[in-house]
Amino acid sequence: MIVVLKPGTGAEKKEKLIQWLEHQGMRVHISDGDYQTVLGIIGDASRLDLDLVESLEIVDKVSRVTEPFKCCNRKFHPEDMVVSAGGVPVGGGHFAMIAGPCSVETEEQILTVAKAVKAAGADLLRGGAFKPRTSPYDFSGLKARGLELLRIARAETGLPIVTELMDIRDLELFSDVDVIQVGARNMQNFDLLRELGHCDKPILLKRGLANTLRELLMSAEYIMAGGNEQVILCERGIRTFADYTRNTLDLSAVPVLHELSHLPVIVDPSHATGLSRLVPSMAMAGVAAGADGLMIEVHNDPIHALCDGAQSLRPEEYAKLSEKVRQIRKVVTA
Amino acid sequence: MIVVLKPGTGAEKKEKLIQWLEHQGMRVHISDGDYQTVLGIIGDASRLDLDLVESLEIVDKVSRVTEPFKCCNRKFHPEDMVVSAGGVPVGGGHFAMIAGPCSVETEEQILTVAKAVKAAGADLLRGGAFKPRTSPYDFSGLKARGLELLRIARAETGLPIVTELMDIRDLELFSDVDVIQVGARNMQNFDLLRELGHCDKPILLKRGLANTLRELLMSAEYIMAGGNEQVILCERGIRTFADYTRNTLDLSAVPVLHELSHLPVIVDPSHATGLSRLVPSMAMAGVAAGADGLMIEVHNDPIHALCDGAQSLRPEEYAKLSEKVRQIRKVVTA
Amino acid sequence: MIVVLKPGTGAEKKEKLIQWLEHQGMRVHISDGDYQTVLGIIGDASRLDLDLVESLEIVDKVSRVTEPFKCCNRKFHPEDMVVSAGGVPVGGGHFAMIAGPCSVETEEQILTVAKAVKAAGADLLRGGAFKPRTSPYDFSGLKARGLELLRIARAETGLPIVTELMDIRDLELFSDVDVIQVGARNMQNFDLLRELGHCDKPILLKRGLANTLRELLMSAEYIMAGGNEQVILCERGIRTFADYTRNTLDLSAVPVLHELSHLPVIVDPSHATGLSRLVPSMAMAGVAAGADGLMIEVHNDPIHALCDGAQSLRPEEYAKLSEKVRQIRKVVTA
Amino acid sequence: MIVVLKPGTGAEKKEKLIQWLEHQGMRVHISDGDYQTVLGIIGDASRLDLDLVESLEIVDKVSRVTEPFKCCNRKFHPEDMVVSAGGVPVGGGHFAMIAGPCSVETEEQILTVAKAVKAAGADLLRGGAFKPRTSPYDFSGLKARGLELLRIARAETGLPIVTELMDIRDLELFSDVDVIQVGARNMQNFDLLRELGHCDKPILLKRGLANTLRELLMSAEYIMAGGNEQVILCERGIRTFADYTRNTLDLSAVPVLHELSHLPVIVDPSHATGLSRLVPSMAMAGVAAGADGLMIEVHNDPIHALCDGAQSLRPEEYAKLSEKVRQIRKVVTA
Repeated sequence: MIVVLKPGTGAEKKEKLIQWLEHQGMRVHISDGDYQTVLGIIGDASRLDLDLVESLEIVDKVSRVTEPFKCCNRKFHPEDMVVSAGGVPVGGGHFAMIAGPCSVETEEQILTVAKAVKAAGADLLRGGAFKPRTSPYDFSGLKARGLELLRIARAETGLPIVTELMDIRDLELFSDVDVIQVGARNMQNFDLLRELGHCDKPILLKRGLANTLRELLMSAEYIMAGGNEQVILCERGIRTFADYTRNTLDLSAVPVLHELSHLPVIVDPSHATGLSRLVPSMAMAGVAAGADGLMIEVHNDPIHALCDGAQSLRPEEYAKLSEKVRQIRKVVTA
Repeated sequence: MIVVLKPGTGAEKKEKLIQWLEHQGMRVHISDGDYQTVLGIIGDASRLDLDLVESLEIVDKVSRVTEPFKCCNRKFHPEDMVVSAGGVPVGGGHFAMIAGPCSVETEEQILTVAKAVKAAGADLLRGGAFKPRTSPYDFSGLKARGLELLRIARAETGLPIVTELMDIRDLELFSDVDVIQVGARNMQNFDLLRELGHCDKPILLKRGLANTLRELLMSAEYIMAGGNEQVILCERGIRTFADYTRNTLDLSAVPVLHELSHLPVIVDPSHATGLSRLVPSMAMAGVAAGADGLMIEVHNDPIHALCDGAQSLRPEEYAKLSEKVRQIRKVVTA
Repeated sequence: MIVVLKPGTGAEKKEKLIQWLEHQGMRVHISDGDYQTVLGIIGDASRLDLDLVESLEIVDKVSRVTEPFKCCNRKFHPEDMVVSAGGVPVGGGHFAMIAGPCSVETEEQILTVAKAVKAAGADLLRGGAFKPRTSPYDFSGLKARGLELLRIARAETGLPIVTELMDIRDLELFSDVDVIQVGARNMQNFDLLRELGHCDKPILLKRGLANTLRELLMSAEYIMAGGNEQVILCERGIRTFADYTRNTLDLSAVPVLHELSHLPVIVDPSHATGLSRLVPSMAMAGVAAGADGLMIEVHNDPIHALCDGAQSLRPEEYAKLSEKVRQIRKVVTA
Repeated sequence: MIVVLKPGTGAEKKEKLIQWLEHQGMRVHISDGDYQTVLGIIGDASRLDLDLVESLEIVDKVSRVTEPFKCCNRKFHPEDMVVSAGGVPVGGGHFAMIAGPCSVETEEQILTVAKAVKAAGADLLRGGAFKPRTSPYDFSGLKARGLELLRIARAETGLPIVTELMDIRDLELFSDVDVIQVGARNMQNFDLLRELGHCDKPILLKRGLANTLRELLMSAEYIMAGGNEQVILCERGIRTFADYTRNTLDLSAVPVLHELSHLPVIVDPSHATGLSRLVPSMAMAGVAAGADGLMIEVHNDPIHALCDGAQSLRPEEYAKLSEKVRQIRKVVTA
């Protein structure tokens, strides 16, 4: 950690701070510049309260040198992690297509979609049984019955299933799920993350709407510190001033996360844009950016069928997109 | 709800959409403009999936006319809500000062601070026993022992206590707490909110880092829809590009929330800025903006004592600030 | 335009507003909902002050139905615009690679880079002669001499040149430039835009750091309303809370701009990320998102040569990237 | 400047970098930590290209120690600057109220408003003659005639005038203006700033929509470096995801700018919120935050008169607000 002192800091105050730092077990290396003094703090600075130090009258700024994450840090794990998602490898050169409806609605619906995406080459089936909804009055999913329908679809197609857990008290119901998804709004639900660190299933961890990449990695660290190293990171759009799409897909997250961490990184273009007609472009951009997989919503909704020219992602559109994604993937990894 | 169709939409497609809307139980009012057709949807549009309608090929844009929140909507509750926080009224002309340390650390610490803020006229004592921490390696609070120390401080000073609940499984431990705080990161932890709707304690609900005011109100709605109408809203800073303060305190939230809702609104300048030397200015700005209360961190930390000129909010600084806040409150409500 | 009145608005006030609107030349269509009255305003609502109407006591909200831009609106220009950039077609199926150094430094430098990017298949040469710098103490470009060096490089390689104009008083110096660039900070320098509307050169208009896509189009409209229809739009990253890259490249801008406008859209991954090691991923993502071109910084700087493994975009890296971009372009347009 | 090298950087590459830095005239202080090497760069680091150094393969991060602004830096100018705005002192304990209409429309209008705000104790008159408009089709001000009307209003009331300059070619027309305003969109129009550095009038510099406080200060530095030290900084709201107000007023800018600079800081609550009914709360919050003045829009518009209960800021509302602002100012400075 580096602590820059304000110009004109008296020797006595400087000395007191150094003593306090040493008392916390740090070694302090003093470097006097032309204008300001810089203290290099050597030792396990993760135990120091950076905000506290920064708030001191004599301190100008503070910056960490070492990243506070270890388990998910590529510095300590140079090899790509390959996560086994119900038998499907993700990461380390293995690309996975996850597809399915936003919500599981009926047996017929989930079976139809599951078979269609399987035919188009999808590797995993997604579908929401527990749905986070901004309004308490909106439909919040079929819950246990939704999980049952997903299992039926898996039995029928062989596709492993990915579905979201919102409340840790429901964990038992998820014993037969292949990949547990943590949604954007729960990215910093630390108690939930900690519990998932003790389970033996891969976790698909979505980036929160207003979270930095380092915070996403710290949340992965919560899971991994508990012993569960099977974490897949997912970029799904951040909240910005931009008002045309629901969120702003931050694709630079893909190469940056690959730089900082050895975990696989996938992209969800459906939630990011909120407009299905933009999904193909953003899916192709995601794979071109180097993602290890894509998570795409596919549905066969009556209203879309009704308006036959609608730009929504119906199974046939998904199939066409899949083919292009595969070709771009080949170019990227060539 | 208003649905604007794209120019040149064919009569047949328009008719199909209208039929579908009517099938969902809506009445549709058609208005043909010079360029575009506008459909006015009359009925309980909260049951329609706005995103789905917006994604249709023939739809240009969709906007809701009525707010989706009812319980916390001033339109239906014109009188200010007065929340009773352990006997202390908040809102509707009642101003409350909440003060205390970030974390409860020791009996001596909490008693010292509690007595000091009581002497400076604080109405409620805050202190964290369960702490949300970005890193799994950071100190996450004294937990049950912290709650016990808060009770001791209450017994000693008479100040009701406000403290954060992170995991619904801990609810029982909070049976003796006066006000339960929901932190910014849990503002959209919908299962937690729903459970708190069934408890009989006031809830202090903090705005999430990237949440709009309407989303904050929808989260209050979750609690209130369950029967618990005692909700206090709290602005504590949002995440923006601004890089000097930890977050950007959005004080316009105060008059806007008062316009939209009858719930009391308080301001937390400590978390918003992350720099204690800015707290007095932002606290005064908060009360001037019309807040019904302030939540301020006060501590008597050794390192601050060490550097005697530090700008941190020590008890004596808090006392001085309290006096100014009271005077500004008088001007605002005169 | 649609004006939603607050519930309980008295008949008299409603009548006064309608009269005022009719007095402004509008026709008003009244639609009474279960809760609220909605006024459909028919006529040229672009002449009304939306903010003023919105601020009225009886008004709940206001929304425009028609877009305020005409010249750059795809609704009125369904065919893609093809801009001729010094003879190189951009848009409408024509993909252009623009490459070169950030700043023109010396004749040797610009010639070396120009030849290298030409060899790698670049279509246009970029290079800054007038540089916008945050600090008044930083090097702000070679100015007229820089333009001269660009002309020399063009003569040598045949590549048309793209360079930024910051001050309208310098326009004469640009008479021999092929494409004039308007930088992000000048996107809403309306006097500059208006003047460029009267010149006969293509304008490469960069999106401002905090501007919506509709604002970008309104700025294009400024140029086009003056008679100059040769505008190329450029996404170069927006400012968000994300702190790892310099800006956040918003690639959804590409399909959205193509939807709203017939103008060509290019992507600048170099300025967006600020980190040359991320440029290849973001360049590939840009072309995959459907961009009509890419603008990439290429340099042969001694310090990069010095550290031989540096991830910076040297000519040979650019050549390799170009090849991948071409292949992805083929997949996208197949 | 501090340069942190990546762990495992070879001795040879480290040596090359140090040589290069020394070749640029820096002294380099090497500090080897447990994990990483930190280079302390001593000398005039403002001449180094921070982005270039950061992009090197062996560099983990770079941070500046000294601020790049000098003329407006409180470190070198501990005493508050008092700007003389047409004879009215602003800053250093002098509080100024600037009021007037958004645009100058007619002689009657500007005279009516000017007299009303003068009667309510305003110190300066604002009014737009050249108006920045997002759309080329909107009214862009009366221009020279508007300036003339402002002069008439000054002659009548004695209030010095503040008005916006957008195009440096119009500077001559402003020779008789008391304070020249630079709008948010021109905050980084560096050529404009540089020219204003050579004029002898106070400049009211508004913060750009997406600019940090350090960037605002760098723009002030442009003006001051040219010799014109009379700069007033103005916070007027930034662009965030928040969607209820036009922009988000960032009041923490006030104490932070006072900390970093000796220049006076004023607040414009009218443009920040875009909703006149929120202006009184935000104006009171602004003075409570420590602002040296407020800039408020006052108008006497027929439509507002029409809807007699409208919440807009009419002269009588301004007068009432002024009184409260004065009282809060007394509390803050007591």
